[in-house]
Amino acid sequence: MIAGRLTIEDRLAIEDLYAAYVAALDERRYDDWLALFTEDCSYRLVSRENYERGLELSLLAFESKGMLQDRIFGIRETLFHEPYYQRHLIANFVFTPDDGAIAVQANYVVIRTKPAQPSEVYNTGRSRDRIVPTPDGFRFAERVCVFDSELILNSLIYPI
Amino acid sequence: MIAGRLTIEDRLAIEDLYAAYVAALDERRYDDWLALFTEDCSYRLVSRENYERGLELSLLAFESKGMLQDRIFGIRETLFHEPYYQRHLIANFVFTPDDGAIAVQANYVVIRTKPAQPSEVYNTGRSRDRIVPTPDGFRFAERVCVFDSELILNSLIYPI
Amino acid sequence: MIAGRLTIEDRLAIEDLYAAYVAALDERRYDDWLALFTEDCSYRLVSRENYERGLELSLLAFESKGMLQDRIFGIRETLFHEPYYQRHLIANFVFTPDDGAIAVQANYVVIRTKPAQPSEVYNTGRSRDRIVPTPDGFRFAERVCVFDSELILNSLIYPI
Repeated sequence: MIAGRLTIEDRLAIEDLYAAYVAALDERRYDDWLALFTEDCSYRLVSRENYERGLELSLLAFESKGMLQDRIFGIRETLFHEPYYQRHLIANFVFTPDDGAIAVQANYVVIRTKPAQPSEVYNTGRSRDRIVPTPDGFRFAERVCVFDSELILNSLIYPI
Repeated sequence: MIAGRLTIEDRLAIEDLYAAYVAALDERRYDDWLALFTEDCSYRLVSRENYERGLELSLLAFESKGMLQDRIFGIRETLFHEPYYQRHLIANFVFTPDDGAIAVQANYVVIRTKPAQPSEVYNTGRSRDRIVPTPDGFRFAERVCVFDSELILNSLIYPI
Repeated sequence: MIAGRLTIEDRLAIEDLYAAYVAALDERRYDDWLALFTEDCSYRLVSRENYERGLELSLLAFESKGMLQDRIFGIRETLFHEPYYQRHLIANFVFTPDDGAIAVQANYVVIRTKPAQPSEVYNTGRSRDRIVPTPDGFRFAERVCVFDSELILNSLIYPI
């Protein structure tokens, strides 16, 4: 970043960050996924209805990398769940430099595939993230996924 | 644009235009959405079947920004409709500079979410647009969305 | 490419290659699609389950451009099939320069539309391709589409 302006290289590096995020998550390489967050990161998954009303109630809310690690531990070791595959597509990025960080909004869809069942739209919405430069490259300082559905995703196990 | 050649900056600015389009439309910020069109713009939504046969019959056809404004007025004030959320993903842009404008083709999918129902594929196809540089940046002079389905989308309210 | 490093121009040219791939395939311009492969290309479509177990069993496997041409001939002339439209979205590219070539991974979804039926998620997964520079621009030397579903896609006719 040069004087608060996003260079082309920055922009492509942020697109790379999202591509790495998606690849790690969908391939269940959770350690690689965790490495894309800052230590004091936050992660929230919230319905559009609650988000637009300013309600804090989230389906998932993690306030540090340690809490994200706990979730991953849960997925690997303790959470009883029927496995399913996730497939993300994230597109149409809006970049807004903001005081040394970059606010990044994008639309996403997650396709879920359960064993022996057809693939289906599982979750869709937009993400509103705060990306920061670090010595290791751009990282997620804050990630908020706002999904369109009002249905409670009881079966949601993996992060979006 | 330099001598009819699209620079990297132009190309990314056009991707930004689409991202702004998608964000405004899906968040129902219709004034922001309208601002992305030229005054004498045209907008059409047409089935692939009709489009490939050269038929003019469109599901939606607006021949100026004023007509787009009328539609927005209708959505806000007069059209009786069951509300639903739209979520666009637009990807795989083909850029073709064309006499001062840029022809841009892309694939899109729109996921619809009705209240208390799961998200579903609503409309998919390709867009074939003409983008022009203006003092305010790139704008849509022409937008044509060609959708794959033969089904009449009776319930279609919002632009694609 | 400069000393094994991907320039911005290279990267955008590779995104253009994918956009041309998608446009040609979804519009059934198969000759244009074939032109995007090298002569000694390979193309495979394989389930995630088999791929992760290292099994060679593929749903489609073509070991040269000639074999791809045979498939296209089959689609046009001999394969009895109910037609359907395909619509690809490919996003979130991971570029890895590799000894003169570029390994490119991406996520994809294909939406299928049958006559008089609603559009639906047909196939989703990731592609793992090897792209090479040629005098005519970047081309596919190897394309592997790894789809998430375990269901056998009996009705699969067109390449992904």
